[in-house]
Amino acid sequence: MLGRTYDRENCSAARTLEIVGERWSLLIIRNAMFAGSTRFTEFQRKLGIAPNILSGRLDRFVAAGLMQTRPLTGDAETREYVLTRRGLDLQGVIIALTEWGDRWAAPQGAPIIYEHESCGGQVHQHLSCADCDAAPAPAQVTARPGPGMHTV
Amino acid sequence: MLGRTYDRENCSAARTLEIVGERWSLLIIRNAMFAGSTRFTEFQRKLGIAPNILSGRLDRFVAAGLMQTRPLTGDAETREYVLTRRGLDLQGVIIALTEWGDRWAAPQGAPIIYEHESCGGQVHQHLSCADCDAAPAPAQVTARPGPGMHTV
Repeated sequence: MLGRTYDRENCSAARTLEIVGERWSLLIIRNAMFAGSTRFTEFQRKLGIAPNILSGRLDRFVAAGLMQTRPLTGDAETREYVLTRRGLDLQGVIIALTEWGDRWAAPQGAPIIYEHESCGGQVHQHLSCADCDAAPAPAQVTARPGPGMHTV
Repeated sequence: MLGRTYDRENCSAARTLEIVGERWSLLIIRNAMFAGSTRFTEFQRKLGIAPNILSGRLDRFVAAGLMQTRPLTGDAETREYVLTRRGLDLQGVIIALTEWGDRWAAPQGAPIIYEHESCGGQVHQHLSCADCDAAPAPAQVTARPGPGMHTV
């Protein structure tokens, strides 16, 4: 149980949400990661997002190092938006969101299956304990201050 | 690679974000899960959130089945907000957000450590393949339509 620790908002979940904490942000990253979208017009068409909102989000992702831009092959006037390693590393967040929705908001079954490309097996998220290797139930996981707690 | 599949927004990540897809929502759930907050005034004080926003979020969580209310022990006029199993199951999402922030936005180290209560070991998120048991790199994970894709 962690009371005062969270009062200060020195928390990595909060910091991540500062960057990607609203619906459009994670859906843009999802489409870059899994639907192969790279161009402004592709994101706009596939997501049905207003151009000014999309433009703001993409600029923020570039500034935050989640995406980088490069000229489109064969059309140097058009920029492509490509996820960096930092952006690709949000895959665990997207798969965690998807699996919760599969369990609690998908009565007809999972709309999307994540697959391991080389063997075709399904990819899932797990929580596990680094010491005893158990998969703890939610109530068995507690939070305590870590090394970065008092340094901000 | 999944192109048209995502155009329809029949996606469990999108559905989850409909419910918890903005910063305050996940921080409220995080505080309920790990900081022991149950009362309106506790959430308000610890998070510094405006009462009207907090009230709207808590009502939405109750309507969506993530929380339930009950009279506070010893003060029947005050309601407590308690996570349901559905709400507690967001733990994987919160830990995934935290671990990304620990890796990319916590230069002084993790502010919070998640521990397995019974043994004290650290709890981490993993992605793994159900067939070959490998932990696939981001580029090795692809999305394909699942059983629930064409039923909405």
